[in-house]
Parts: sequence; C-alpha cells; structure tokens
Amino acid sequence: MKYVDLNSDIGEGYGAYKITSDEAIINMISSANIACGFHAGDANVMDQTVKLAKEKNVGIGAHPGFPDLMGFGRRMIHMESEEIYRMVAYQIGALQSFCLINGVSMQHVKPHGALYNLAAKDTEIAHAIATAIYDIDKNLILYGLAGSKLLTMGKKAGLKTASEVFADRTYQSDGTLTPRTSTNAVISNDAEAVKQVLQMITEGTVTATDGTKVPVQADTICVHGDGEHAIQFASRLKVELEQAGIQLKRIGDTNDEK
Amino acid sequence: MKYVDLNSDIGEGYGAYKITSDEAIINMISSANIACGFHAGDANVMDQTVKLAKEKNVGIGAHPGFPDLMGFGRRMIHMESEEIYRMVAYQIGALQSFCLINGVSMQHVKPHGALYNLAAKDTEIAHAIATAIYDIDKNLILYGLAGSKLLTMGKKAGLKTASEVFADRTYQSDGTLTPRTSTNAVISNDAEAVKQVLQMITEGTVTATDGTKVPVQADTICVHGDGEHAIQFASRLKVELEQAGIQLKRIGDTNDEK
Amino acid sequence: MKYVDLNSDIGEGYGAYKITSDEAIINMISSANIACGFHAGDANVMDQTVKLAKEKNVGIGAHPGFPDLMGFGRRMIHMESEEIYRMVAYQIGALQSFCLINGVSMQHVKPHGALYNLAAKDTEIAHAIATAIYDIDKNLILYGLAGSKLLTMGKKAGLKTASEVFADRTYQSDGTLTPRTSTNAVISNDAEAVKQVLQMITEGTVTATDGTKVPVQADTICVHGDGEHAIQFASRLKVELEQAGIQLKRIGDTNDEK
Amino acid sequence: MKYVDLNSDIGEGYGAYKITSDEAIINMISSANIACGFHAGDANVMDQTVKLAKEKNVGIGAHPGFPDLMGFGRRMIHMESEEIYRMVAYQIGALQSFCLINGVSMQHVKPHGALYNLAAKDTEIAHAIATAIYDIDKNLILYGLAGSKLLTMGKKAGLKTASEVFADRTYQSDGTLTPRTSTNAVISNDAEAVKQVLQMITEGTVTATDGTKVPVQADTICVHGDGEHAIQFASRLKVELEQAGIQLKRIGDTNDEK
Repeated sequence: MKYVDLNSDIGEGYGAYKITSDEAIINMISSANIACGFHAGDANVMDQTVKLAKEKNVGIGAHPGFPDLMGFGRRMIHMESEEIYRMVAYQIGALQSFCLINGVSMQHVKPHGALYNLAAKDTEIAHAIATAIYDIDKNLILYGLAGSKLLTMGKKAGLKTASEVFADRTYQSDGTLTPRTSTNAVISNDAEAVKQVLQMITEGTVTATDGTKVPVQADTICVHGDGEHAIQFASRLKVELEQAGIQLKRIGDTNDEK
Repeated sequence: MKYVDLNSDIGEGYGAYKITSDEAIINMISSANIACGFHAGDANVMDQTVKLAKEKNVGIGAHPGFPDLMGFGRRMIHMESEEIYRMVAYQIGALQSFCLINGVSMQHVKPHGALYNLAAKDTEIAHAIATAIYDIDKNLILYGLAGSKLLTMGKKAGLKTASEVFADRTYQSDGTLTPRTSTNAVISNDAEAVKQVLQMITEGTVTATDGTKVPVQADTICVHGDGEHAIQFASRLKVELEQAGIQLKRIGDTNDEK
Repeated sequence: MKYVDLNSDIGEGYGAYKITSDEAIINMISSANIACGFHAGDANVMDQTVKLAKEKNVGIGAHPGFPDLMGFGRRMIHMESEEIYRMVAYQIGALQSFCLINGVSMQHVKPHGALYNLAAKDTEIAHAIATAIYDIDKNLILYGLAGSKLLTMGKKAGLKTASEVFADRTYQSDGTLTPRTSTNAVISNDAEAVKQVLQMITEGTVTATDGTKVPVQADTICVHGDGEHAIQFASRLKVELEQAGIQLKRIGDTNDEK
Repeated sequence: MKYVDLNSDIGEGYGAYKITSDEAIINMISSANIACGFHAGDANVMDQTVKLAKEKNVGIGAHPGFPDLMGFGRRMIHMESEEIYRMVAYQIGALQSFCLINGVSMQHVKPHGALYNLAAKDTEIAHAIATAIYDIDKNLILYGLAGSKLLTMGKKAGLKTASEVFADRTYQSDGTLTPRTSTNAVISNDAEAVKQVLQMITEGTVTATDGTKVPVQADTICVHGDGEHAIQFASRLKVELEQAGIQLKRIGDTNDEK
C-alpha cells in the first residue's frame, strides 16, 4: 500500500471576504495550510478553519506569509532574516492558540506565497524560517518545495520535512519548476496532471519539459480550493489515486493533542 | 514581610515608533504587560521586550487590545463576545511564541485600554476574555481592575486573579475609580500617590474622594513608563515601598519554563 | 415623467478579494457608492470602479467608512467628531484622485455602514461629516437616510442632499426603519418590495408596519449588488419602474468634469 | 541674491506615536514633505501638519510611500508600476483634501524611502510616479534625487522638477550617493556638511570621495527633523546659508489657493 498527503491552502477569508471553498476542498485533502492573519485569515476565520479541519480529521498546518493583505502575501517585501524569523514565530503562535482551544495539535508549517518562493532559494531566509519553527516546537513538520533550500535547512535544523510537488505545474530538467513566465509552465489538461502525480508517487520521477525523466520526492501534493474547476480536479485526483492503490494519509500521526 | 507586584505596560513601540522607556521602567517593576501587535507592538518589539523582561527576571504578561493601532487600543470597537474571545486568544498565542523561543513562561494576561475598561463592567465580555485565557493555559493569572467584573468572571472560570489598583487615580465611595471626566480623577501630587499606595497595601483600604475609607484589594499596582516624570515616580514608589518594608514580588513564581 | 435614482455600493473588493458583482449591478443603477480603502476598496479597485462607472455613465460617489477592513465598516468605533471629519476628508480626497485621473467629476458622498447609521442619529457626527464634504467641495451631494440627522445637518451646511429609502426594509409609523432585531424588519417578497418603492415615488408615502401611511421622501433607492438574488431584484425593480413611467436618473447632472 | 529650498519630512507620527519634532524643524525649512498615511501619518496628523505648514508659510508636499507602517516605508515591496501609479494617486488625493479644507494649495510631491530610492533607478516606476502626479495636477512640482531617473521622467511627463541634494551624505565621482554600506557614506562633521552644501549652491559642484569635483544641481536640500542633533544642524545650516547670502525660498510661489 502506497500513501500520499494532499494539502491545500484554506482559511483564506478575511472578515466579510471569502476566496476558497473550504467546506468542499476539505473533503479531498489530508492536510490543511491555514492562513494566520498576515496575508489572509483573521481570528474568527482561523478558529472556524481549525474546527473544520478537526472535524474532518485533516492535519493542521500554520501557513505564515508576508504582512500584506492587499497583496495576498504574493508580493516580496524586503526584510531581514531576523525579522522573518519573528514574523513566522508570531503567526505560528497565533494559530497555536486556536489549536489549544480546540484541543488539537498542530501538524506542520508551510510558508505562503512570496515567502515560500523566497525560502526555496535563499539559504539565510530558509534557515530563519526553519529555526523559528524548531524553536517553537521541534515536532512540527516543515512543508517546502521539493529540492528547495527550505527543506535542506529544515533537515539541518532538526525538523522532519515534507517534500511538496505540484500536479498542475511542469518541471525543468534540473528538477525545478518551469517559471510562470514560460508558456508551458502550467498543465491545463487534468488527465495529464493526474498522470504526472501518479508517476511522481509510483516512480519517484517527473518527465521534464525537455522529455528527460528527473527524480523527484513527492511526500505531499498541493491542490487548490478556489473555484469550481479546482474542486473538481482535486476530487478527480483523489479518486484516481485511490483507484491506483494510493491512499490519502497525512504526514503527522493524528490530531490528538500531544 | 509584605509583598506587592508593580506592573507596567511595555513593548508599546511599533516599527520605527517608540512610546515607553522600557529600559528604564523595567528596573522598577516585577511584572510587564507586553503589547501583542493589535494596538501596539510588533513581532520585533515583542521579541526584544520578552528578552528584556527575562533578563531582568520580570513576570511576562500578554496585553491584548482592540485591533486599532491608530487609536492605540483606546477606542471602543463594537464586537461580539465570541469575536473578543478569539481576538484575545490570537494575541496570547502570538506572545506565547516569543516566550517559547526565549525559554520563559508567560505569567499573566491583562487586557489593554478600552478592552480593559469594557471588561471591568461587561459580564459577557469579561467571561469571553477569562475563558479564552483558561482555554489556552489555565495557569495564566488574570490581571484586572480591583472590584471589576473581569476578576469575578476570571475566578468563576477557574483562573488565579490579581486585583489591580492605581497609584495616581482617586477612588469613589463605592470603590470604583473617579471617572476621568471629573476634575479630581487624577492624583498629581507624587507624595499623595505614594501615601495612597502604602495605605492600600498595609491597610487594605483607600480613602475615597468624600473622605470615607473603602476596602480595596491591592495585589498589583499599575505604574506608567512613558515620560520622565512617570519613570521618576515609579522609582520613588519602589524606594518608599522598600523603606516601608514592602518588597516587590511578581504574582507568579518564576520565569522558568513549566 | 417621473425620475428616481437607484444607487448601490460597489468597488467593495480588496486585493484578491471580491464581494459585489459590479459588472452586473452597474447596469441597473444611476449612482455608485465607491468604497475608499478604509472598510473596503484599495487603490486598484477604486481606479477600476471609477472607470466602470464612467463607462456606464453612472454617478460617482465616495463611500467613506470606519477604518476597519475586518469588520467591513459595520462595527462602531468610538471616535471624536473632529476625527470623523478628518477621516471622511481623507477618503473623499483619495477617491477624488481617481476621478481626476479618469477625467470625471464626483457626484456625491454617502457614508457607509456603522458610520451611516451613526450619522443618522447623532447630530454632532452628522455635522462633522456634512462640513467635511462642504469644505472639500460644496457641489458634492450628500446621500443619507430619509428623515435622518445627516440630511438635516447637510442642508444646514449648505449641501444639496438626496433622501435615501430602502426597497427591502419595512418602516415604522414614525417614519424610521424597523430595527433589524425585529422579525418583520426585512421585506423578503420581491413583489412587495417593488410595490413599496412605487408607492414611495408616486405617492411620497410608505405603509408602516402598523398599517398607517407615513410621508417619505424618496430621492434615491438603495439596491444591493452582492449575490444572484440581489442582481435579479435590482433588474426587476428597474424594469417595473420603467413600466410605471419612472425613469432612472442620477441626482447630479453628468460625469463631465466641472 | 541666491536662493535655495530646504525641505524636511514631517508629519510622520501615527496615532499616539511621534518621531519628528515638527514644531522645531518647521522653522528651519521652506518646504515640507507630509506623510500620507501609508508609511506614516494619519488623517489627524496630516490635518495638523498642513495647518502648521500653512501657519509658517512653508510649501506643502505630498510624501507618498509604500503601504508599510511597520517598515516605515523603508522596505521595498514588489509592485507593478500601475499599482504604484494608483498608490501614489491615492495618497496625493488624501493630502489634497487637507489642503482644500485648510485653504492652501499643494506645492510638490516627493516619494518616500524605498519608493524614492526605487524611483531614482527604475525608469518604469519613475514614469508611473511622474504621470500619476501629472494626471492629478500638472502644476505640482516633483522632488527627486539629483541626477535620478525620477527627475528625467518627471521632466518628460511635463512636470516642473526640483533636484534634491543631501548635506550629510558623500557623493561618488559619477555623481551618485555613496551607498550606505560604505563606511564613508555619511558626513558626521557638521562643518563639513555645511561646507558641502555651500559649494553645491554657489559652485554647482560637489567634491566626490575620490577628490574629483563633480557637477550637481542643488535646487533643494533635505534636512532631518528627528532628534536634537538634527534640529541643531538644520538651524546651523540655515544661519550659515543666510550669512553666505543665500536665502531660503520655497520652489513654488506661495501657499495661496490656485
């Protein structure tokens, strides 16, 4: 029996605003990345989202981002690595309260948006994020882009890590994602996207844009929860994974409080 | 030997902004109320302030307030009690991270400004705050105005509480503070303010504006850290307390991690 | 030929967030209240919304609110009237820039949410808002609740005013809206709501919840742009108004720059 | 008779926070750059600051910055040039309201902090800022770093520009500022700083760090208003300029409303 983790960013509303269909996507995933109030989410949304994840027995992760609600955490803000260490610590702590009051334990941390991309390439920032997590709770699992500096620094800091891959993105022959500026960056055909995921899990490889097969570690697959098509694709992916004998399973053990 | 706790609001800077002279006032107090990023404070300031309190062996408290940096948490915002529960939870959690990464434990929680005043009179809000604290960590001590609903609801929730008095505010015959709208609300004479504090601690009474003696419980005294005069008064109060055989002592035991 | 103005709150998105279907509702209205960045809206949304209103020849109004994105401007924040004067001035100015760069003139100002409700009853706040508008541009038209203090103070300040009524809300025998806490506050039957509007425009009266007919001035009718039903109702209202010989017409003259 | 403009960033408080000593520095300058609420300043501070500048007959300028109060506008945020165009438009409009209600006209616009530095080097951003200003009011004067892209694009857009120099910063042989990362970036000796300014105004040159004389246009000199030393230096500079027969004079004509 093979296992894989499906994760999605949820709890991305703010006050009267909503983006993702959390009640739908929660049924297709085993782990949830919950916004912590900086790029999205507020205390009310966070509490509701933790309750939803608990009810569905989905692993709970903090999803810290840059302090930029207007930019949804997608705009890089130049900050010192110490500031990023503290910014991540603040957000994990805030979500931790909602885990405590709901009697669940936090499973993982996955940086969001521009912070995720920055941490993939910048060793110093990756180190800052990894040590912030470790210093708060060394049992937290660090989610990061497959092959990224973030995973390297996470392991170095002593954290358990989960290597994340994307169903709907193409890869280059060096194992990195094709930049979004390229026309072939995104896989729009659902069947192809499912096929790529299956190959990643069963073979541990991905076929790059130049046709070469590249090794890739797929501990967790990121799916999206915004829009009807995203929900349909996640649903299809889950079904096809199960048909291929691959079961959804969160990386951490359970939601029971430690 | 008699003991009393002196507390002060510190860590009220934000980015490039500063208000209180934390490095000065920290030497006159046994407990610190640290802003959590909503009405003041940011992740950098919070980390520095926790480090300072740890170094000086001062008890660390979360100081949650309304989400209103421009109003410094002094403006009432109409919110449901459940929203206040979550707003307080969020802020305690954020500060908790800085306690964890600095290897100290949090001693107490004291609401700030308009939230403090609201919680003194409104049973439902007082209950929301008390249960938020209890649900996160039942060992946290709740600081509130002497005679307030907040202390009543805190005890009811199962929390240890600290009854707070003010050196520089006059009291009415019913034991409540003279409203700031009255001309005699504030004691501007330092000697009188010190005398009032000594009477509160040694006799457990305060002489109200109409001359009657009213019982009051003085577990902790609030002193201010903004401005030269505030620092001088706090310094004088500490000296006179010690001369009267009253020693500064935090309410909780130590800063050691539980 | 009779005329009436239909207005709606639009431009209420923020960054990646959206609420109202502006492209749909813009076709049913003659005036638009555009959020100014405090309770909703950002510079990008404001620019797009002004462009949309210009294209459809819809009157442009500033829709200032409390500085509370999380609460969507629906939570009262206790502020001095001078602070509200300046807060309103700031927001009108911000929107004015987008009128200037798009070569249109601003038609009106309508306070949002909790500020609208507060200004309906509080003479001092109503005065602060009216004078802020007058001091910036005395040709701006003030939109306010029919029978409100805001309209009284607006006229007193020298502003042209527009008396606003609601299609889907019931009225009491004193001409005020039935509070939302009452079970009969909202008219959920669309035909009844249309009928109420027609009576308001043609007769200048509304039938109160106790059956009495009360005089009401209906210069402008507020319709909503969030959700499918809201769009359908606005569409139906527009059609039935036209069938009754009542034409949509903005209060101010044109969008041409003064 | 020679003239020069001295400008300073003022109105940088926010709510209870203050940074600059506006009442002191206002007496040493002929033009004021007023923060517009994004990196500093709020509606109350802006109104007070415009009133102060009017009273002292100091030219009023908008000082737009990145939306980052915590970073004080000193952190680069990656934004599209169209977003920067609108962000600048929003802030100018907001300050414009306070000019209108105080019956003064705005003289200039000077970008703040990271936006100023970015606009000095990036042609597209410089163009966005210049056209935003022009589209709102083509009579506004654009302040920018001597020799910067911002001035080039400002002239190209049809704006009057003012070339800004610094008293306390050294220059390189190519006319650019020595980067702050170099040890000799700042002139800490007040006499030398005054001497540099005098040479800039009277000779139109600056002596670079390698000893060569480089041409520089000094329309306006930036002085700081934060801290005692800054105030003393500004005061000394003003006195020495006057002794050398150089009079303080704002770039624009007067504060009278156009």
